[in-house]
Amino acid sequence: VRWHRCDLFDGRTCDELVAALAPELLVHLAWNAVPGQFWISDENVRWVEASLRLMRSFAGAGGRRAVLAGSCAEYGPAAGICSEDSTPLRPGALYGSCKDALRQVVAAHARQAGYRAAWVRIFHPFGARERPDRLIPSVIQGLLAGRPVDLTEGHQRRDFLAVEDVAAALVSVLASDFEGPLNVGSGDATSVRDMAAMIAALTGGHELVRFGARSGGKEPQLVVADTTRINHELGWAPAVPLEDGIARAVDWWRAQMREDALQLAR
Amino acid sequence: VRWHRCDLFDGRTCDELVAALAPELLVHLAWNAVPGQFWISDENVRWVEASLRLMRSFAGAGGRRAVLAGSCAEYGPAAGICSEDSTPLRPGALYGSCKDALRQVVAAHARQAGYRAAWVRIFHPFGARERPDRLIPSVIQGLLAGRPVDLTEGHQRRDFLAVEDVAAALVSVLASDFEGPLNVGSGDATSVRDMAAMIAALTGGHELVRFGARSGGKEPQLVVADTTRINHELGWAPAVPLEDGIARAVDWWRAQMREDALQLAR
Repeated sequence: VRWHRCDLFDGRTCDELVAALAPELLVHLAWNAVPGQFWISDENVRWVEASLRLMRSFAGAGGRRAVLAGSCAEYGPAAGICSEDSTPLRPGALYGSCKDALRQVVAAHARQAGYRAAWVRIFHPFGARERPDRLIPSVIQGLLAGRPVDLTEGHQRRDFLAVEDVAAALVSVLASDFEGPLNVGSGDATSVRDMAAMIAALTGGHELVRFGARSGGKEPQLVVADTTRINHELGWAPAVPLEDGIARAVDWWRAQMREDALQLAR
Repeated sequence: VRWHRCDLFDGRTCDELVAALAPELLVHLAWNAVPGQFWISDENVRWVEASLRLMRSFAGAGGRRAVLAGSCAEYGPAAGICSEDSTPLRPGALYGSCKDALRQVVAAHARQAGYRAAWVRIFHPFGARERPDRLIPSVIQGLLAGRPVDLTEGHQRRDFLAVEDVAAALVSVLASDFEGPLNVGSGDATSVRDMAAMIAALTGGHELVRFGARSGGKEPQLVVADTTRINHELGWAPAVPLEDGIARAVDWWRAQMREDALQLAR
């Protein structure tokens, strides 16, 4: 493996790198994903621009196969069970609109330019190296530290998928001929309440989780992938049971917190 | 009126111009419209990128009201009577996909950034200064020159609108608060056959028009605007009857051809 670094917002440098490497395969995962701002940031629009330029470079350099990261957010807050074929796309924020618009241009561009593009709608990934201010890491860290953790009532259900399975799914899609949108999820809906209980079972401190201490606001009640297509057309299914994925995440954060404490003690 | 020229593909220069002018209103009509290539050109993707950057500049400079040119091509070849509210968007080529994707991002960006954006789906404009290789100018020029004109059977029906009416509609939309997609058309479907007959009635040479001499290929049979929204919500309707618009176009091309002939004679 050889690594090359490039700022995708620096279009000319990116064009030159892609032209020099002439990659056959492309997995494009970059985007603004900063919690609290990615939904509405102006940078979503810049990511559409930068991604389109990347795809033009890729096609111009003879690229054959691209996998781009979409999101369950394209379906929008009212979608419930999300099917690639039948669920209308009604994104509720700039983020989902930009992802969906990019998908549409890339699909048409791929047909015209002669490469094959798959668009993976990733549901709710979690695991090692996740941003510490996201839901699961903040519950894990709070409970490991013995701090109270304020949550909503936690009845909203999500499709959580261990990051190892997300990566495996991407590899599987890349190696396939699949074109168009494809849900990457577990197909199972788990409530935030049950997720927190699973974490507490591993960390202790169940009584520290305060359900209802935060307002749920306008959070969707149910977001879960219909995984019929990835299961049947790609023969792919998750390999990591949710409990195991959570246990791995807890282990990773425990090690991380120990290391941080050792750093402080030095 | 003061004119400023700027290459929208030169994003930095464009950013600087927009920042310096801080325009309140924007009418964005630029795109690749070269007959025979605009449907599939890679440049459609570049126009999405350049247009998004322009909209970010505009919003950043405090812009309040934008009108952007979309196209009936967003509805796709099978649409028939095209309604903003009920006709599914199934563009058949890269051009229509890029226009529709731009519309989606701009609508979400406008909501987020706080400007009002209208998206005018222009149907089939014609008139003075049209590209000479498009349908109506080529029929007019052929018949004025006494040359045979090869057409398809000409049963396909289109929604032709005089360029003066297109301009008037844009002004009307700009002055309104209308947001989202809006058809700009006459609401009348006229066959290419009838259009050619109208031209021949003004130029003579009806016998020079050879219907069926060219293959219609996969041309859509009917593309016409449902103009309910622009008629009722904006109180706008075309002012130029089709025959008058055609007569103006014939006059313009006659004068143009005389001038060209004088140039040659000098």
